[in-house]
Amino acid sequence: MTEPRLTNIGPIGVIGGTGAQGFGLALRWAQAGEAVVIGSREAGRAQQAAERIKKKLGRDAKVSGDENRAVCASCDLLVLTIPFEGHAALLKELKPSIRPGAIVVDTTVPLAASVGGHATRTLAVWQGSAAEQAAELVPAGVPLVAAFQNVGAKLLTDESPVECDVIVCGDDRDAVKTVRHLAAKIPGVRALDGGALENARVLEQITALLIGFSVRNKTHCGIRITGLPASAFVSR
Amino acid sequence: MTEPRLTNIGPIGVIGGTGAQGFGLALRWAQAGEAVVIGSREAGRAQQAAERIKKKLGRDAKVSGDENRAVCASCDLLVLTIPFEGHAALLKELKPSIRPGAIVVDTTVPLAASVGGHATRTLAVWQGSAAEQAAELVPAGVPLVAAFQNVGAKLLTDESPVECDVIVCGDDRDAVKTVRHLAAKIPGVRALDGGALENARVLEQITALLIGFSVRNKTHCGIRITGLPASAFVSR
Repeated sequence: MTEPRLTNIGPIGVIGGTGAQGFGLALRWAQAGEAVVIGSREAGRAQQAAERIKKKLGRDAKVSGDENRAVCASCDLLVLTIPFEGHAALLKELKPSIRPGAIVVDTTVPLAASVGGHATRTLAVWQGSAAEQAAELVPAGVPLVAAFQNVGAKLLTDESPVECDVIVCGDDRDAVKTVRHLAAKIPGVRALDGGALENARVLEQITALLIGFSVRNKTHCGIRITGLPASAFVSR
Repeated sequence: MTEPRLTNIGPIGVIGGTGAQGFGLALRWAQAGEAVVIGSREAGRAQQAAERIKKKLGRDAKVSGDENRAVCASCDLLVLTIPFEGHAALLKELKPSIRPGAIVVDTTVPLAASVGGHATRTLAVWQGSAAEQAAELVPAGVPLVAAFQNVGAKLLTDESPVECDVIVCGDDRDAVKTVRHLAAKIPGVRALDGGALENARVLEQITALLIGFSVRNKTHCGIRITGLPASAFVSR
């Protein structure tokens, strides 16, 4: 693979980054030296989350907080970490603020828990997956990439390397490449090309299966794809 | 877990065992010292497959071949390795021959390739998965267990340990336990409890994802669940 585009892309905006998953991702990227802007409905809550990260990593950590729309207006790499129940509505609200050159990364899983069901089951989304639904809701020409569904918040906020592959799916191959470099900044993660965006259907289902494993075994599970050559993954 | 029931259950019948996946499973079980009966539409072809295994493992290997219905009539552990296009029709045909005390293990994946589509996509099955469809087609009281979808034929026919977990799903917990012991007879396999039969939906989808990984990387992929305690898997 060619060199990461990441360093030229400016800060990473984590929409909904006050939630457990978004916070964990923001923490790991700030730890890797990336500039991160945490987004929330309320700028104050986002700033508090940024402060918590600075407390952990030191004052030099390049992390700040702002209201979700302001984050969209200032970042070319947006990572959506929104529960499925608010996913479509928030995306519609954010759409006018998303910059034309941006890449949007969706991490959302349509767990049945969103409508009061089990976290070990998913809802059927008309487009096939939450990510494919999101692809319909971003501005035309903005690539939508699916990733990070299988990495639980607990694994991200732990100190140890993340024992999980991140499978990255998308139809814009350059955007997929960028997001793989983003994923590989997290220690332990192997960032794999998962092919077309439609494969997000499987990634989202895998999360439900992993939740089942985690519950049954009182632990926090991840997945690894075996049998891959070294060329298949980006390392840090 | 308590002791394996496997040794008391008699020979393992591999329906459709002349196909690549069934043959690979039969080979591994015969290698582990289990008695195996390979089933096929034609008894002759099943006997030829059994001969090929004996040639590989020696004359002492406990493997024979017979017509599918005869295998159903003589085995209490039946493993279905049938392509999805013939799956429901064959099960209807076999139903009267399946013994009341039997356990039926389904390995089938409803790949879109069954109807001329891609092997990286699945068909939507009304019941949710091929395994849940199969559960409707076996005699009442016969437990249906889903397993082995993610272990490709190439990994099974190789000499090396299988770098893949086998996730076993089913609603009859005793039957799941038996099938986990069956899976653990294959070197390298960790036999995991995947919960209820409905989770076969995810197992079947994972196969399509793994086929994509294998094609893109010109290799043969499997999966591992990470973060599990040792108590989560049966070893040989």
